[in-house]
Amino acid sequence: MPEAASAAAVRATIGDSEFDRDTAVTRRAPGVYDLDLSAGWTIINAVNGGYLLAVLGRALGDALPHPDPFTISAHYLTASQPGPAVVRTETVRTGRTLSTGQASLFQYDDEGNEVERIRVLASYGDLDALPDDVRTSAKPPAIPPMDQCFGPEDGPAPVEGSSAITDRLMLKLDPATLGWALGQPSGRGEMRAWFGLADGRDADPLSLLLAVDALPPTAFELGLKGWVPTVELTAHVRCRPAPGPLRVSITTRNLAGGFLEEDAEVWDSADRLVAQSRQLARVRLG
Amino acid sequence: MPEAASAAAVRATIGDSEFDRDTAVTRRAPGVYDLDLSAGWTIINAVNGGYLLAVLGRALGDALPHPDPFTISAHYLTASQPGPAVVRTETVRTGRTLSTGQASLFQYDDEGNEVERIRVLASYGDLDALPDDVRTSAKPPAIPPMDQCFGPEDGPAPVEGSSAITDRLMLKLDPATLGWALGQPSGRGEMRAWFGLADGRDADPLSLLLAVDALPPTAFELGLKGWVPTVELTAHVRCRPAPGPLRVSITTRNLAGGFLEEDAEVWDSADRLVAQSRQLARVRLG
Repeated sequence: MPEAASAAAVRATIGDSEFDRDTAVTRRAPGVYDLDLSAGWTIINAVNGGYLLAVLGRALGDALPHPDPFTISAHYLTASQPGPAVVRTETVRTGRTLSTGQASLFQYDDEGNEVERIRVLASYGDLDALPDDVRTSAKPPAIPPMDQCFGPEDGPAPVEGSSAITDRLMLKLDPATLGWALGQPSGRGEMRAWFGLADGRDADPLSLLLAVDALPPTAFELGLKGWVPTVELTAHVRCRPAPGPLRVSITTRNLAGGFLEEDAEVWDSADRLVAQSRQLARVRLG
Repeated sequence: MPEAASAAAVRATIGDSEFDRDTAVTRRAPGVYDLDLSAGWTIINAVNGGYLLAVLGRALGDALPHPDPFTISAHYLTASQPGPAVVRTETVRTGRTLSTGQASLFQYDDEGNEVERIRVLASYGDLDALPDDVRTSAKPPAIPPMDQCFGPEDGPAPVEGSSAITDRLMLKLDPATLGWALGQPSGRGEMRAWFGLADGRDADPLSLLLAVDALPPTAFELGLKGWVPTVELTAHVRCRPAPGPLRVSITTRNLAGGFLEEDAEVWDSADRLVAQSRQLARVRLG
């Protein structure tokens, strides 16, 4: 496996990495893209929602005149499976600073009919064209140094239900939010982690779409063990991330009526709040 | 004006109120609705974004098999004007618990061509069918009693740029977030208020879509005076609100690169967190 060997030896780069290959889309016709959903980004046998968002984000970045997702809203319709898929995009409006597009990801049923998996609406711009004013009052999450945090490789499956995606991520969880893995959930609905890609690829706006949905669900720290499928997730990308590991915090403050929200913040190594997201998820008691 | 007189004397009800009349839609064909955007919900000459969201929400509630917006994401494309409009909806997916739909609001240019104003994606359900578990850790905003808060009627235009919409709202702002009106913005990016409809109509899921975008922009408390147009707004409705006034708090924590986020929470008189929203808005220095 010369590729795997070189990936381990040489740090991957933006454009030449596992994440880039697995989110690649091929233009079949204007606005229509073929792709293959990789089995490498599954968690508990489901294709990760952040990975799917990145695939759709890449297609829209090609279809629209602006390169970067500023705000992208995804409604998850049916469960995606590894394998062939097609993304159909529509340019809704083109402006000087922002353009808005829509995209749907389809897969195929047994008769070959298209089944819609996800639909997104997004407004794109150019992060590099923004003025450099920063008046952020939010503070980065307080996470211990990385060597005091824990990943799946640090113990007997501390990340419950972990599967293929954990091999592709560098995820180091704050021990203060790891109670669930020891059978002692804190009840606080918070999760914090250092985040990166396992092959060393630095973050870019597309991988931020992965980062906002890559941690174990906050529901675990609320003492819930079941699956927490996303109904809708909206992410804002606010800044091109600096090289180096990201810090991600997710918080749930309103678990009620069988649903919960999950707010994510992603901070880069330069202490910039580079992305924010919120999702509405269903609680399925396991 | 017998209608106005009776509205003042008799408390309006859900289904028979100014808000209901001004968000009414008439089905022209399956999934297609005609309506008239009222000039009564304009602010600084722009049609309020929350009012527009409520109009789209009403059309989708008719088109979809489920009645209540659980999560609705709107991308604002061009500036709406009072007057005729059409909403075209599409049913994306129908499930047992949730259905997903899309809707666009169009108006007309000088040649009568449709111009798209807003596009939304939304997942609808039935709030009354949800289990009654509540494990909300968020706390209601600390707002002084209503008689210690201030509305447009309490002084010389304390709500700067106020216009028609202020006559239709019962909005009483926490004096701690009113510094901007006195030329002394706090710099904190917070706004808190008691909120209701002026004719006494109680809140319902549709008026919550208005409530999340009805306060003065947090940017005012950050010392900015210009217009803050919404790029995208996503609202989650989590519970049917109890009768009585609502408390709304909005917060901005990330003003950077000429954009800001605004997070809103809406609490009802029974201390339930009934709606949450986040928007991405552009800062235009005025």
